[in-house]
Amino acid sequence: MNIAVLGAGNVAWHLSKAFIKAGFPVQQVWNRSSGKATELALETGANSITDLSLLSEDIDLVLLALSDEAIPVVAAELKLKPHQLLVHTSGSVGLDAIRSYAVNTGVIYPLQTFSKNVAVDFTEIPVFIEGDSRKTVDQLKQIALHLSPNVFEVTSEQRIKLHISAVFACNFTNYLYAIASELLTSSGLDFEYIKPLIKETAHKALNGNPIDLQTGPAKRNDRQTIEKHLQMLRDNTEWQQLYRAISQNIVKMYSQNDERR
Amino acid sequence: MNIAVLGAGNVAWHLSKAFIKAGFPVQQVWNRSSGKATELALETGANSITDLSLLSEDIDLVLLALSDEAIPVVAAELKLKPHQLLVHTSGSVGLDAIRSYAVNTGVIYPLQTFSKNVAVDFTEIPVFIEGDSRKTVDQLKQIALHLSPNVFEVTSEQRIKLHISAVFACNFTNYLYAIASELLTSSGLDFEYIKPLIKETAHKALNGNPIDLQTGPAKRNDRQTIEKHLQMLRDNTEWQQLYRAISQNIVKMYSQNDERR
Repeated sequence: MNIAVLGAGNVAWHLSKAFIKAGFPVQQVWNRSSGKATELALETGANSITDLSLLSEDIDLVLLALSDEAIPVVAAELKLKPHQLLVHTSGSVGLDAIRSYAVNTGVIYPLQTFSKNVAVDFTEIPVFIEGDSRKTVDQLKQIALHLSPNVFEVTSEQRIKLHISAVFACNFTNYLYAIASELLTSSGLDFEYIKPLIKETAHKALNGNPIDLQTGPAKRNDRQTIEKHLQMLRDNTEWQQLYRAISQNIVKMYSQNDERR
Repeated sequence: MNIAVLGAGNVAWHLSKAFIKAGFPVQQVWNRSSGKATELALETGANSITDLSLLSEDIDLVLLALSDEAIPVVAAELKLKPHQLLVHTSGSVGLDAIRSYAVNTGVIYPLQTFSKNVAVDFTEIPVFIEGDSRKTVDQLKQIALHLSPNVFEVTSEQRIKLHISAVFACNFTNYLYAIASELLTSSGLDFEYIKPLIKETAHKALNGNPIDLQTGPAKRNDRQTIEKHLQMLRDNTEWQQLYRAISQNIVKMYSQNDERR
């Protein structure tokens, strides 16, 4: 199987490396900014192409590892042969966005946070696939199983729910860590102090249901502490509003749960 | 050193067990609800007392492991001898709240999330101390070092900042995990799917600065994806508002950072 990767961002990098590791060399890479394509080509041993018309007929799998907006734009520029499978890797773009640009289309969505300089073990990542036909789904499953043993078929709607969940559990969580980090350092305290707590909080969620694991002032509806904290956050309106909103949600969530018991 | 623990919540349980493990038996336990005190007494081999006037003169350290509101109330009911050190364990209550109720007063604040049925390794927990005098601080340091090698002296104001950071990095993070869990299960998806991501997000923060590790649609200011996600969250106004607020904060944070570069 010959692969072309269009895009040169974090997903393109990690997916290319995972394919190579699985024994599928990446033949061609393309990116709107040719500098980044050259970098990825050097890293993967692929050929960097500057023009989409140079996409080789030998390519079997065209991977669109692009931003959500770029996916349909780049797909529309392609002139694929019937044997060439067109696949995007986005959580929030439906299969419909590329369906008309190739005979067979699909999605390979690895659910993980990728940073260029942080190595990931792809075999631990769940990979979600979708295809325009049973045949495509089977084909994508075979391909994806080389990357990870955890391959699941989902609909476009389920995939966007996966992506939103990931935004809450990963992107927004990291933002909360960033707030904690800034709060500590601005008070002459070390971010190190909070690390055992970050570790334990994740560890608990990995071994239980977070809905049963909630702790803290809002869970206890401890108004006095909440008010003290809001008062201390008075110099940062955004953090203060966020503290208030999340606390109100937690109070509401657990008072409802109590009523149900 | 003879210890009495007043309170029977999660902190009282874990702190009692940690003291016993360190070789300091807990002599007496008290709680407003005597049932819970009896339970803790059975667990720790201490005597359960129903009346604060029964606090023994042999007690050297009186630990107030109580809710923030209860700390000054219970402290006011005590009639301590000059040799008895009065200590509370709260993140958000100043030392002043108990200063007038004993000759020597202090704080021992272990920064961790405690659930009754989840064992914790106290030696990994940072313990923050404060005392009414240099002598008390030294004394508390000696005591706390039996619990954990990570003992730090902080002011009341720094301690409340530690607590607020913990609320963001632990309590609010767990709430985001809970949202992810509910989003997934309501779409016929498994919370398991997101666990590698939770693990990796925490792992990255433990090995770097979260401010440099932000990823996701808001970091990229990817309006199209953000709008799609908000649209999908239309049935839950609270989650939708939270998604919007955090995304706006992240967009603002990183556009400011970009300008600074």
